Amino acid sequence: MTSNVPIVEQILSANDRLATMNRSQLDASGTVAMNMMASPGAGKTSVILRTIAGLGDSFPLGVVEGDTALTSIDADKVLAAGMPAVQINTGGQCHLDAPMVEGGLAQLPLNELQLVIIENVGNLVCPAAFDVGAHFNVVIASVPEGDDKPYKYPQIYRGIDALILNKIDLLPYIDFDMEYFRRGIQMLNPDVTIFPLSCKTDEGMGAWVDWLTERVASGK
Amino acid sequence: MTSNVPIVEQILSANDRLATMNRSQLDASGTVAMNMMASPGAGKTSVILRTIAGLGDSFPLGVVEGDTALTSIDADKVLAAGMPAVQINTGGQCHLDAPMVEGGLAQLPLNELQLVIIENVGNLVCPAAFDVGAHFNVVIASVPEGDDKPYKYPQIYRGIDALILNKIDLLPYIDFDMEYFRRGIQMLNPDVTIFPLSCKTDEGMGAWVDWLTERVASGK
Repeated sequence: MTSNVPIVEQILSANDRLATMNRSQLDASGTVAMNMMASPGAGKTSVILRTIAGLGDSFPLGVVEGDTALTSIDADKVLAAGMPAVQINTGGQCHLDAPMVEGGLAQLPLNELQLVIIENVGNLVCPAAFDVGAHFNVVIASVPEGDDKPYKYPQIYRGIDALILNKIDLLPYIDFDMEYFRRGIQMLNPDVTIFPLSCKTDEGMGAWVDWLTERVASGK
Repeated sequence: MTSNVPIVEQILSANDRLATMNRSQLDASGTVAMNMMASPGAGKTSVILRTIAGLGDSFPLGVVEGDTALTSIDADKVLAAGMPAVQINTGGQCHLDAPMVEGGLAQLPLNELQLVIIENVGNLVCPAAFDVGAHFNVVIASVPEGDDKPYKYPQIYRGIDALILNKIDLLPYIDFDMEYFRRGIQMLNPDVTIFPLSCKTDEGMGAWVDWLTERVASGK
């Protein structure tokens, strides 16, 4: 049976349309973008710096840093590590959106970059609702935040491709039930790859860097 | 010189008007309310539980727990500690607002309580913008989040009366510059009282409990 009702494409919001444009622009220059989300202090910038060190000269990358305040603390660290970085001040806003990231991408030499890391505002709630135009999404959790976070902030874990569990060097000093944490994540997102690691000792960093390298090589 | 321009009272937003009504309702029953804000995993619920233990039977209190998800993990812990607790599910929203807290207060026996602790959603950005009707505001920071948080999330520290720095038992294992952290806080809020403490060892808990007891005794 056929229907006479015309099938209309899904109408995307302004943000989603601009996110799609960001992705097209990245594709045109052969650049893959990763959206990195986390709670404040989970170690986003530390993971980026250890990732840069771990990648060595595998491929060139750039970083878009989202901050609620007028500070360049994070971008300065990336620049000191020898990579191009752009700071976006959200003016108090609690998340990055596609227009902000469009502005950041415009200031990076995309044709020279194979990867752009978008460091979102530190927030486990709001960034989940905004497509910024990245090809994949990663959340960084950290051991001191506690093993119950997947149960209390479920939305952020649903759409991600990988989960980094940072600060595993603190496991001896903190009550953290790894199985309870893993169960919480897998209940929300059965296919996600989990990388327990430490930016302090570099334990587990190799597996994460390998995964990221494959992702960039595959172009998505 | 007098002016002919009529002086009009500041027109408050719907949220602010309802927050004022919440405060009036609390005042009418002789109850003081504290709004507790923090990053996810800073230890809000642990601080509440150790505060209940530290207060002993000084005065009766109740807790309003804000969560983005349908979980009663935190409220169950407070109930197990023998105090009335209400769970508010924000339906994914990133902060509590005055209408939500109004709903929570309606389920507590306010006439029997001297203090209501409002545990906001774990978020260092959005809760700062919403008056919920509390008499004073407290932020819980934690050592593993890092010493640079006041510089990166300034807004939340501006309107608070006390700052708890939790998890000081982890100081030996983490690079945390206490002077840099204190300078950042005092730059934003010179009058705030800072309480470094540990819910694990109870170190510093006494000074915090004394401050809270005085606040409740003074009725604001």
